[in-house]
Amino acid sequence: MESKVVKAYGTASAEADLKQMNINRRSVTPKDVEIDIHYCGVCHSDLHFARNDWGMTQYPVVPGHEIVGTVTKIGSGVSKYKVGDLVAVGCLVDSCRTCDNCKDDLEQYCPQWVGTYGGYDKHLDSPTHGGYSETIVVDEEFVLRVPKNLDQAGIAPVLCAGITTWSPLKHWKVGKNSKVAVVGLGGLGHMAIKLADALGAHVTLFSRSPNKVKDGLALGADQVIISTDEEQMASVMGHFDVIIDTVPYAHDLNPYIGTLATNGTLVVVGYLGPLDPMLVTVPMIMGRRSVAGSLIGGIAETQELLDFCGKHNITSDIEIIKIQDINKAYERMLKSDVQYRFVIDMKSLKA
Amino acid sequence: MESKVVKAYGTASAEADLKQMNINRRSVTPKDVEIDIHYCGVCHSDLHFARNDWGMTQYPVVPGHEIVGTVTKIGSGVSKYKVGDLVAVGCLVDSCRTCDNCKDDLEQYCPQWVGTYGGYDKHLDSPTHGGYSETIVVDEEFVLRVPKNLDQAGIAPVLCAGITTWSPLKHWKVGKNSKVAVVGLGGLGHMAIKLADALGAHVTLFSRSPNKVKDGLALGADQVIISTDEEQMASVMGHFDVIIDTVPYAHDLNPYIGTLATNGTLVVVGYLGPLDPMLVTVPMIMGRRSVAGSLIGGIAETQELLDFCGKHNITSDIEIIKIQDINKAYERMLKSDVQYRFVIDMKSLKA
Repeated sequence: MESKVVKAYGTASAEADLKQMNINRRSVTPKDVEIDIHYCGVCHSDLHFARNDWGMTQYPVVPGHEIVGTVTKIGSGVSKYKVGDLVAVGCLVDSCRTCDNCKDDLEQYCPQWVGTYGGYDKHLDSPTHGGYSETIVVDEEFVLRVPKNLDQAGIAPVLCAGITTWSPLKHWKVGKNSKVAVVGLGGLGHMAIKLADALGAHVTLFSRSPNKVKDGLALGADQVIISTDEEQMASVMGHFDVIIDTVPYAHDLNPYIGTLATNGTLVVVGYLGPLDPMLVTVPMIMGRRSVAGSLIGGIAETQELLDFCGKHNITSDIEIIKIQDINKAYERMLKSDVQYRFVIDMKSLKA
Repeated sequence: MESKVVKAYGTASAEADLKQMNINRRSVTPKDVEIDIHYCGVCHSDLHFARNDWGMTQYPVVPGHEIVGTVTKIGSGVSKYKVGDLVAVGCLVDSCRTCDNCKDDLEQYCPQWVGTYGGYDKHLDSPTHGGYSETIVVDEEFVLRVPKNLDQAGIAPVLCAGITTWSPLKHWKVGKNSKVAVVGLGGLGHMAIKLADALGAHVTLFSRSPNKVKDGLALGADQVIISTDEEQMASVMGHFDVIIDTVPYAHDLNPYIGTLATNGTLVVVGYLGPLDPMLVTVPMIMGRRSVAGSLIGGIAETQELLDFCGKHNITSDIEIIKIQDINKAYERMLKSDVQYRFVIDMKSLKA
């Protein structure tokens, strides 16, 4: 298979900083789209993967799965896109396309889904590489259309942080008059607030920090409950239809379960790490409450979200960085020192 | 308020055996039905309550919430029942009737629901007493009609063991072609198998004991998976739409979560005790799987179940005992030495 060398940022080991390297991108097959990458969001998973926190990284790794750019070349059989189209790529670049999940537009639950990085590129017989690079080549079925009215950089985080919160909001039927709570105000949490608000829900932010009240309200929350304040917590007992828990480390879910209404569901969307929570089942039994997990979203659902963002003029709140600052950005991300997502301007790589 | 003294079986302390005692039953108010009790099922909760395992028992306590009998008297405003009707009473004898849960026929989740025993009888200003007694007086709205074609003793456990498994089967929309698993083969488990089978589902029993295979199949299971056999467990990974977990003590839920299909739900209906389970969230996230709790069922849903049992000729598999043998029965129940429910023939109390 023909390929070409492009510039990227990645790392060859868990201990090393990310640095510039060359990678191969395959030539377009009949169904492929080649994309010139303009912006790539920086996700917590990028850092976890670069540092092998999940014990599954194959090196070298080039992270990045919140990709926005323009089509520069199409394969002979491509029908959905043409050169010059503004497009996006999220966390998935392929799946088996034949299993029940794929048939149900739930490619993210396909046992053979191919991650945008760290997956397996069957054409090149090598690992897939992500969006910290000049270009990417992706099957058109896994390419998304970006509404032209939206800021290109601001839309990048929608591809992971956005869809990860959108999918459970839609699956658990959040709409007008739903009572939704969001736990944690980071990349995912701030998108969850914006999206639930735009869906017409009454939105509550749970935060441990009184400093987050002003920001939570500005993003669209109707109230902020300080989760360490017993009186405030008591005021929302039995209240919520859906809670989106975005906190990406081990924490106690039980205080939130009591705030669910009858038939309510708490959805975990962050990776809680090896210290999993104890689950107190009595409050679940006494109100037919559920704890669920949810993973990103399917391709059709991600397109639905991008179109929704276009219609409601929703983008992520971001801080644009140069690729050369990615290691500093990782350190700041570990301290939650970002409001609310870093996005790499890929011109910095091409310069 | 007028009342009359009737014979019952109960206990005045956590340490004492149950023995015969006298209790007061109120005279019928305009909306009340007086019931001559023929049979009363013996539920694990009876034992927990008698021994104050949940730390909330007020003594003396008279257990029993799987009650079948005939109407012997009705209040002036009763419209649903007449003297001589075959009726039943389950776990609830009242609720607030005005909250959202009550309006939604979910009286079991009303914060003010009144238990058949250990609740508060507002007419007598005293604790409610259960079915281990000659008679009971209950508001007609909490009385159920029993299909005449069914064995009276066999229908008693439907009022708790049956509805506890029926409610989640219906809420999670089990029907033809659903793949359902049942964890544990006791009073609840054997009803869950019968009901899921009658709903048209493909039913699997999870059991730790190879001795249960024959019985599980005889009750209607299509297969029995020995949960300690890794190969058998691997054969059902990603398989089930709904798992009804009936095991009434602390145990590890995680091996079962992996056997749920995408969007599948494991429903805990047993009280797991103070040792609550660790929840490994990754398999939940990777397949949008849920863990939920469910508590008995509402009055309308319990009537629906009794009618369903009448239509499908379903009763519980029982062992009939005399009230004088209740303490022995409790000891055998603790050793799971019952197939699958004790039912007290209340003639033994009246003799």
